[in-house]
Amino acid sequence: MRRALRLAASGPWPDPNPRVGCVVVAAGGTVVGEGFHDGAGTPHAEVGALRAAGAAARGATAYVTLEPCSHTGRTGPCTDLLVAAGVARVVFAQSDPNPDAAGGAERLQAAGVQVSAGVLADEAAALNARWARTVVLGRPLVTWKLATTLDGRSAAADGTSQWITGEEARADVHELRATRDAVLVGTGTALTDDPRLTVRMPDGRVAPHQPLRVVMGLRDLLEGARVHDGPGTVVRLVTRDPREALDSLWHKGVRDVWLEGGPTLAAAFLRAGLVDDVYAYVAPALLGAGRATVVDLGIHTIADALRLRLVDVAVVGGDVRIHAVPARDDATTDLHLPERP
Amino acid sequence: MRRALRLAASGPWPDPNPRVGCVVVAAGGTVVGEGFHDGAGTPHAEVGALRAAGAAARGATAYVTLEPCSHTGRTGPCTDLLVAAGVARVVFAQSDPNPDAAGGAERLQAAGVQVSAGVLADEAAALNARWARTVVLGRPLVTWKLATTLDGRSAAADGTSQWITGEEARADVHELRATRDAVLVGTGTALTDDPRLTVRMPDGRVAPHQPLRVVMGLRDLLEGARVHDGPGTVVRLVTRDPREALDSLWHKGVRDVWLEGGPTLAAAFLRAGLVDDVYAYVAPALLGAGRATVVDLGIHTIADALRLRLVDVAVVGGDVRIHAVPARDDATTDLHLPERP
Repeated sequence: MRRALRLAASGPWPDPNPRVGCVVVAAGGTVVGEGFHDGAGTPHAEVGALRAAGAAARGATAYVTLEPCSHTGRTGPCTDLLVAAGVARVVFAQSDPNPDAAGGAERLQAAGVQVSAGVLADEAAALNARWARTVVLGRPLVTWKLATTLDGRSAAADGTSQWITGEEARADVHELRATRDAVLVGTGTALTDDPRLTVRMPDGRVAPHQPLRVVMGLRDLLEGARVHDGPGTVVRLVTRDPREALDSLWHKGVRDVWLEGGPTLAAAFLRAGLVDDVYAYVAPALLGAGRATVVDLGIHTIADALRLRLVDVAVVGGDVRIHAVPARDDATTDLHLPERP
Repeated sequence: MRRALRLAASGPWPDPNPRVGCVVVAAGGTVVGEGFHDGAGTPHAEVGALRAAGAAARGATAYVTLEPCSHTGRTGPCTDLLVAAGVARVVFAQSDPNPDAAGGAERLQAAGVQVSAGVLADEAAALNARWARTVVLGRPLVTWKLATTLDGRSAAADGTSQWITGEEARADVHELRATRDAVLVGTGTALTDDPRLTVRMPDGRVAPHQPLRVVMGLRDLLEGARVHDGPGTVVRLVTRDPREALDSLWHKGVRDVWLEGGPTLAAAFLRAGLVDDVYAYVAPALLGAGRATVVDLGIHTIADALRLRLVDVAVVGGDVRIHAVPARDDATTDLHLPERP
């Protein structure tokens, strides 16, 4: 199962599908096939492993990090494949949290396959924690990134905001942007800051993999807006409604959104309870005036403050990065991306 | 000298005088006298050491952590005492940065005493870094403590601010307050929050040692203001001018002020360049509206932001404590209180 977990970790995230690994072991103890899922549109882990095993799968044990699916999506149900291949026993780690795909264990047992569940389930669950959460929520996860002075300003009185934080913090943002599949701003930010929203490497070059660049809101972008420069796709969502925007993105396969909106857009997401992670880059600087980090949240008294729980705090260059999650929801605390083993 | 440094560290800070230790060693290598300075109004370190040594000081070597003073303050010059005791050699660590007291080395040499300077000078300087800075500035050091949400609010829209940060952060504030000799607020804070300004222990009891409680500003305090409760002294400074306030406090022997003023008072100190340390307790919480942490600093554009340099960042309970110093001045970076060895 450890081998299967390592294989699973080779898969991509964010992706509409979970990361899964599969190892087929013959009765004698020999590994006869391995596979992992390489993202939506590619074969499931079991497919690759069974293909590699061929006839050797008969009577073998399949170790899978996630309960084999019993539904027909872009591929047929893996349960049927396992049965057809003559696998005698299936050992899986995590039960499938996706109601559309669950029920694999029962289906296998009904076909006479011996089934063991829960082996290294925690490790498997950690690997797909963010995916499982999106499945439960039925929407992409949203990470709000803000850059602020110690006194909560995101721009000076004259509107200038470049740069509040230092070079290292900005490089850190680019690294984290690269771990999401969409970068989202409002038309306000697009018009004011004219950001490129690309992931750039420390040397300034555009990174090979680029998240979707998304601008939401009702105003028109300027003709030569820099968001249209560079590779990758730009999505224009003509809505101010966070829920509507996330719904559109969900149907485009987006699962993990990096929100760099200004104070108005951030407030809209926060009010709607649609922020799952907050990365605040706090510059040890004071402005005394200027644009607030976030506008009206409908909170009037301290008891109603929107409380977050710290995940980690790091010094990045001369700035402080605070990663926190809304305290309302225990389930979101440990959804940071797992390291690749 | 290490022994003398350890002795020096027994002395108090904050205090108008530096922490000094002295060890007198007879020609044979035997320690014949030790002393340390226990704060303004008590004998200098050399006095105690020479008294303990008595006749054994003749021909001995005196190790002192600070250049022996050559001026007459509340006590006579230590140089004369050393000469009178017949000390043959004086080894000292730090040269006296106080222009009124310096010149001791020359005076000793003129009297025929052998003098070596600079032994473990860095360690001695670190021990008295804050004192040396006050001597150079001719005013008390000022540490501004603020408690803020991630979006820079020090109170909610309805004015409530208890509590922005958690219990551990508040206990931490009390511990740091106890290391200063005065706690300063403006009449605004005194009227709004009615703080006690005492140092309380984790169990809520008032600590035995209390810094001076200082309220500055022009407005009258309320009859039953809580600042008058509890032990220790309350000082009312009828001024809005930070310089004037610090000058008054300096003449009362105050050397290290803990400023807990509201946004207006903090801004006055910051604008006057009279903040040496900033302790920001940042609660991972959002309010979206409410009182700012600091008001107008006369800064209009991002390039003029008042930049600070991080000294350290710590997680305290569920909050983040950021200790920073104004970036304008290298000399203040390492002025945190040295640990007692």
